[in-house]
Amino acid sequence: MSVTAPQGFEAAGVVAGLKSTGKPDVAVVVNRGPLKVGAAVFTSNRAKANPILWSQQAIADGVVEAIVLNSGGANCFTGSFGFQTTHQTAEKAGELLGISSGDVLVCSTGLIGTGDEVFRAKVLDGTAAAIGALRADGGDDASLAIMTTDSRPKRATVSRDGWTIGAMAKGAGMLAPGLATMLVVVTTDAVLDAQQADAALRAATRTSFDRLDSDGCMSTNDQVTLMVSGASGVTPDAADFAAALAEVCHDLAEQLQGDAEGASHDITIEVVGAASEDDAVVVGRSVARNNLFKAAIFGNDPNWGRVLAAIGTTDAAFDPYDVDVSFNGVRVCTAGGPDRPRDDVDLTPRATRILIDLRSGDAAATILTNDLTHDYVHENSAYSS
Amino acid sequence: MSVTAPQGFEAAGVVAGLKSTGKPDVAVVVNRGPLKVGAAVFTSNRAKANPILWSQQAIADGVVEAIVLNSGGANCFTGSFGFQTTHQTAEKAGELLGISSGDVLVCSTGLIGTGDEVFRAKVLDGTAAAIGALRADGGDDASLAIMTTDSRPKRATVSRDGWTIGAMAKGAGMLAPGLATMLVVVTTDAVLDAQQADAALRAATRTSFDRLDSDGCMSTNDQVTLMVSGASGVTPDAADFAAALAEVCHDLAEQLQGDAEGASHDITIEVVGAASEDDAVVVGRSVARNNLFKAAIFGNDPNWGRVLAAIGTTDAAFDPYDVDVSFNGVRVCTAGGPDRPRDDVDLTPRATRILIDLRSGDAAATILTNDLTHDYVHENSAYSS
Repeated sequence: MSVTAPQGFEAAGVVAGLKSTGKPDVAVVVNRGPLKVGAAVFTSNRAKANPILWSQQAIADGVVEAIVLNSGGANCFTGSFGFQTTHQTAEKAGELLGISSGDVLVCSTGLIGTGDEVFRAKVLDGTAAAIGALRADGGDDASLAIMTTDSRPKRATVSRDGWTIGAMAKGAGMLAPGLATMLVVVTTDAVLDAQQADAALRAATRTSFDRLDSDGCMSTNDQVTLMVSGASGVTPDAADFAAALAEVCHDLAEQLQGDAEGASHDITIEVVGAASEDDAVVVGRSVARNNLFKAAIFGNDPNWGRVLAAIGTTDAAFDPYDVDVSFNGVRVCTAGGPDRPRDDVDLTPRATRILIDLRSGDAAATILTNDLTHDYVHENSAYSS
Repeated sequence: MSVTAPQGFEAAGVVAGLKSTGKPDVAVVVNRGPLKVGAAVFTSNRAKANPILWSQQAIADGVVEAIVLNSGGANCFTGSFGFQTTHQTAEKAGELLGISSGDVLVCSTGLIGTGDEVFRAKVLDGTAAAIGALRADGGDDASLAIMTTDSRPKRATVSRDGWTIGAMAKGAGMLAPGLATMLVVVTTDAVLDAQQADAALRAATRTSFDRLDSDGCMSTNDQVTLMVSGASGVTPDAADFAAALAEVCHDLAEQLQGDAEGASHDITIEVVGAASEDDAVVVGRSVARNNLFKAAIFGNDPNWGRVLAAIGTTDAAFDPYDVDVSFNGVRVCTAGGPDRPRDDVDLTPRATRILIDLRSGDAAATILTNDLTHDYVHENSAYSS
C-alpha cells in the first residue's frame, strides 16, 4: 500500500512511454485532506534539476496537495524549456485536480539532459492519465512507476495509536544524498502542522538517507517529501511521531542500500568513541568513499590498513596509533596495529559490519554503504544514466 | 640512468627476498657530494608509516647523504617495533657508509601492516647488500627495486647548461598524493642550498604529483625526495632550475598516471575560467573522484551530466547553468545544456581530455586521473595491497 496506507491519500502509476521498456513511468500521489501540510528536503548538489528548482518554491508555504513523479528522464540541464516542462506539469495536475499548481510538487529521475518536446508531451499525458487512474489503494502502483535501475520497489509502513505512516522510495546508485537520484514520498494521516512536519522530516533524514553513501556520488534530483493529511484526526506525541518517521526512513534507506547497483555487500560502518557526532560521520564517510576499501570488501578481504589510511585523510580527532577496527565482530586491529588474524574474519555474507573505535570521546554515527564490484563498473559504464 | 644521471650519485637495487616474486626489492641512492643538500615532501595522510615518521625528522636539517627504499612491505601500523626497524635501517646504512644515520632517509612500500622480524632481517641484509653493490650507473637497478604493481619503471632526466636532474618513481594506484604509495627520488648535480632545494621541490610537486588523483585514495607512505650533490659546480638560475624540476616531476606524474592499476584511459581534466586556482583544483578533483564519471569514461560515454553533477558538489564559484564542457575537443555542453551530440565524441583513445570552462574568472588548473574499470576492481579486490 505504501503511500496510500494512511487515510486521506490516493495514488496511481501509469505507463507514459518515457521508459523504453514500456514499464510504468509516471506516478501521482494526492492528499485529500483535511490537512494539506507538506515538508520536503532536497539534494544539496548545487547543480539542481528543474523539478527541484520548482519544488523548492512550491514547498515554501508548507502546503502540498499533490506530487507528480516521473522516471525515464531527469529533466536536469535542460534549460528554461525544461523548467517550463516542470511548470506545465504542475499546472496540468492543478487544473485536473482543481487545486493551485503552486501546491503540486514535481520529481523526475533518469538520464541527465533528457527533457525535449517528446519528453514533455509524454510527461503531460502521463500526468493526466495517472490522475484519471487515482485510487485509494494505488500506492503500490505508484511505487512501481518511480523505479529506474531498481530491481524491486521500496515501500514501508508503520502504524501507531490511530495513525499511520506510509512511504515509497526509489534509488539504486548515486546514493550520497543529496545525489543519485533518490526519490522518497512519505505520507501520514497524523495531525501535524507544517513546522512539525518539517522538523520531523529533517531530523529523520539526517540520520537515515543522509548517512547512506553507496558510491559517494550526489544526485541532481534527490527529493524526500512528507505529505500530511491529518485524516486520522489523531494528534500524535511529537516524539512518538519523530520516532516512527525515523523508523520508516531508516527502513527505506536500508532497502536502498540493499538494492544498490552491482553491489555484493551491504556495509554498515559504525564509528564509536568519536569526539563529536560530526567527527564520527566524517570518519565513516571517508571509509565509505574509499575505493580501495570498497574493492577489498568485494574481495572478502578484511583490509584494516585501508580503513586506517582512509581515516587518516580526515581532520577528525583521533590518534592513528590508538584506533581499533573490527570486521564482522573480529577485532583485526587494536591501537593501530595488527590484532587477530585476517583469516578469522568471514566476509562471505552480504551483510558486513565494520566497527571503528576512535577512542577519543563518546559520540557515534553509522554510515551505510556498498562494495565496489565488477557489476557496479559494468552497470555504470555500459549504460548512460 | 635515472638518479645516477647527474654527477655525484651512486645507486643500487638488489633482491632481499621481501617480494615473493624474487624480484629486486631494496634500493639505495647515495650522494657523494660535494654538497649533501636534501629536501622532501611527505604524504598529508595523518596515518603515516614508520619510514615517513623517521624521514620527517631526518630531513629537518636539510642534509641528506643517502636514502634506502624497499618494496614488499609498507612498515605502516607496525607499532614501535616497526619504527625501530626503520631506525636500524638508517643506522646500518650510516655505519656502512661512514655517515650519520640522521642523514639517511628511509622509504617503504607494500602491504600496510607488514613489518615483522622476518621483514626487518631482510631489509637490513638488503640494505647491506645494496650498499655493497653501489655503482655510478646503478640508477636503473634502483628504479626496478622500488616497483610494486608497476608494470614498468618510471625514470626521467633533463640536462641544462652544465647541470642535470635525474629521477625515479614508483606508484600504480592509491594515487592521490598524499597517498598510494608513490615514492620519488630526484637527484641533481646543480649547486643549490637547502632552502632553494626545498622551495623548488614544493613548487614542482604542487602542480605535478599533487594534481595526480588516480583513485582518490591517499597513501600512508608517499615521499618525494630531492638530493643535491652540486658536483657539476654550476649554480643555475633559480627560475631555470625550478622549470627543469617541474618538467621532471610532471613527466613522472604522467608516467604514474599511464601505469595506474587497471586503467584504460589517462584522463586530463583541464579546468579554466575559474575564479581562483584553488577553485579550479577543487572542481577538477571532484570530477576526478566521481566514480560514475570514471565508469562512464571506461564505457567511452561522454557523460557531461555526471561532470556537472560532480562540479555541483563543490563550493567553487560557478553558475551550474553557465558551464561549458568538452570531451576530446567536442563541446557537448554549453551553458549547462546540451550542445553537440554525444556521438561526435571519440573516447576510444587512451588519452582523454576533458575541458571545463567555469566562466567565472581567469584561473586554471589541470588534474590527471584515470577511469574506473573492471581491472581496477579486480586488482584491488583479488590481492591485498
